[in-house]
Amino acid sequence: MSRSRKPVAGKGAGAHAGAPAKRTAPDLAQVRAQIDEIDLRIQELIGERARWAQQVGKAKGPLKAAVDYYRPEREAQVLRRIIDRNDGPLSDAEIVRLFREIMSACLAQQQPLKIGFLGPNGTFSEQAARKHFGHSAHGLPLASIEEVFTEVESGNADFGVVPVENSGQGTIQVTLDMFLTSKARICGEVELRVHQYLLSRSGQLADIERVYSHPQSLAQCQAWLRQHLPKAERVPVSSNAEAARRARNADDAAAIAGEAAGHVYHLKAVAGPIEDRPDNTTRFLVIGRELFPPSGNDRTSLLVFVKDQPGALYEVLRPFAEHGVSMNRIESRPSHQGLWQYAFFIDFEGHVEDAPVRAALAELERHAAQVRVLGSYPLAIV
Amino acid sequence: MSRSRKPVAGKGAGAHAGAPAKRTAPDLAQVRAQIDEIDLRIQELIGERARWAQQVGKAKGPLKAAVDYYRPEREAQVLRRIIDRNDGPLSDAEIVRLFREIMSACLAQQQPLKIGFLGPNGTFSEQAARKHFGHSAHGLPLASIEEVFTEVESGNADFGVVPVENSGQGTIQVTLDMFLTSKARICGEVELRVHQYLLSRSGQLADIERVYSHPQSLAQCQAWLRQHLPKAERVPVSSNAEAARRARNADDAAAIAGEAAGHVYHLKAVAGPIEDRPDNTTRFLVIGRELFPPSGNDRTSLLVFVKDQPGALYEVLRPFAEHGVSMNRIESRPSHQGLWQYAFFIDFEGHVEDAPVRAALAELERHAAQVRVLGSYPLAIV
Repeated sequence: MSRSRKPVAGKGAGAHAGAPAKRTAPDLAQVRAQIDEIDLRIQELIGERARWAQQVGKAKGPLKAAVDYYRPEREAQVLRRIIDRNDGPLSDAEIVRLFREIMSACLAQQQPLKIGFLGPNGTFSEQAARKHFGHSAHGLPLASIEEVFTEVESGNADFGVVPVENSGQGTIQVTLDMFLTSKARICGEVELRVHQYLLSRSGQLADIERVYSHPQSLAQCQAWLRQHLPKAERVPVSSNAEAARRARNADDAAAIAGEAAGHVYHLKAVAGPIEDRPDNTTRFLVIGRELFPPSGNDRTSLLVFVKDQPGALYEVLRPFAEHGVSMNRIESRPSHQGLWQYAFFIDFEGHVEDAPVRAALAELERHAAQVRVLGSYPLAIV
Repeated sequence: MSRSRKPVAGKGAGAHAGAPAKRTAPDLAQVRAQIDEIDLRIQELIGERARWAQQVGKAKGPLKAAVDYYRPEREAQVLRRIIDRNDGPLSDAEIVRLFREIMSACLAQQQPLKIGFLGPNGTFSEQAARKHFGHSAHGLPLASIEEVFTEVESGNADFGVVPVENSGQGTIQVTLDMFLTSKARICGEVELRVHQYLLSRSGQLADIERVYSHPQSLAQCQAWLRQHLPKAERVPVSSNAEAARRARNADDAAAIAGEAAGHVYHLKAVAGPIEDRPDNTTRFLVIGRELFPPSGNDRTSLLVFVKDQPGALYEVLRPFAEHGVSMNRIESRPSHQGLWQYAFFIDFEGHVEDAPVRAALAELERHAAQVRVLGSYPLAIV
């Protein structure tokens, strides 16, 4: 379904009925009356949307829990259309966030989705879960990544959200390894931007002789540290919170941590964001128990077991190249299934129902010891 | 501004154009097309609302930060109207939540509000702050309630959110006492429901001989414990998380804690919610630097210093009774201003701009050593 109709742009909206007049200073009471009128219409439409959402349930037959209605591919399509036609003034991220919340509320009318994540509350994993499922979903903070998998498999959680890689630092191995034994499927992905700050008691760069942080955070800010604090000692500690705690006790120390840690530990921001890659992002996977149909812009994750023999890797890669399937990522891990047997985690563009992907997989299966489709799922949306 | 126009009710909506037809099983594709059409209109309206919100800023003159636009009394009025005309299918709490997020996004177009709360992330205080200010606001997790006050006074935070009382357990003294010396004003209140669960390793009530929990949580579940576990020992510990941690290590122990703690510590829910008052609620105050105009349904908080002399309390209470001002709460605290001088915290219905309140205050000032208006603010909305 493609629509070309567009809302009137914020920039040149003067001529549009209902858009703010630009010439004269607006009257506050009038502006508020306009907003009240708009709120009334938004409320009516949200109510109408919620009633139609109930009909989705009925169309699907006698099901009860939200997990039976939730369709990641449909949600991705809706959100992509919203971004396509967004011309402000709210950013794509903000308007998508609002629609995720509206969808979350409509979906939660039956029984809210239960979403497991690495707790406690307040972690990046929770932020990712909320970003994807909204605040009407029921969050289950869990003690470990392993537990997110087991709670999803057992059905205690409908879906789980687990970190899988950082744009600068690479893969979170424990997550990948879980797929070696778990039956969980990948149903989606979430990307979350992560910002780092240099924090110290004085707030003066010249005072700093030591920088505390988690090794991953130090690594994310390497280039910045080389340039601005070439002589400072870098001290890896167990967490960024611990780094901030230590920096609090010395005049010549600083911590790399999130901005919030500065407020908690009374530190001033010397500089930030200081991550080397301005797009420093952690990618999370949404795991569930099912595979879903294509959304039109999908990624597939495979787990391929191969015997360690000459040409094995080549045989794995060849079918993708031959069928024009674009590979995003390949990573090998010990398979734990036998000595000298390897597992490859492979991400590529497309859905297992796409013809070129089907052809590549059919060929791959002739050469590999085992091929397991972990999931075909919509690409992360903003 | 009163509107009588109502959206069509969910229950008997069959006759309404655009409402789902009830007779035949709906066709999924048709239902989705309807939802797409509604989403398009919602998106247009949100964009239009955001543009009008920019005009509010212009109407108010050359201001820049969101704090200059934020009007708690106006927000309360908008949300009350939304509740008045809500006839489902979403609950009042859900529709209010969605509108708070829409307002939060519109307000954050200039520069998001900075909201201090007792951290770390994931606390009830953060939940209260998000419930009130939405997710476009910038959250500042702080180390203590004291610090929330100082960050608001210094302007580092635009507003703060601090717990002030629990429906079962009464006042949080440290918060009240901060007002004795702080210049912060009360601009709003937030109510948050709190649920307690009995958690244990086996999940069997018969096994339980000890119950760990924070003293406040034990107190919130007194009657339930008396009825269901009359012989079990009650062991107060420093936090509910600590309680869950201890319960994990014994077959004959249980913890009272939030449901989430059970997932973190691998405990089963024996029963819950088990709080004695089904409306177990913590009330938070929103603190800022200003007083705001009436919203039409307000509460006022006063701090009154009186000399310890016969009849002093009576002289404090009398003006309210005489002018028909309904008092909700009075609490006395040592004033720290001199031996045998007392401070009374008084909450009553109405706004300092209301005539009866003005009259009562004028009379009160003749008898009290000092009267300080902490704030007149809209009552909590769902």
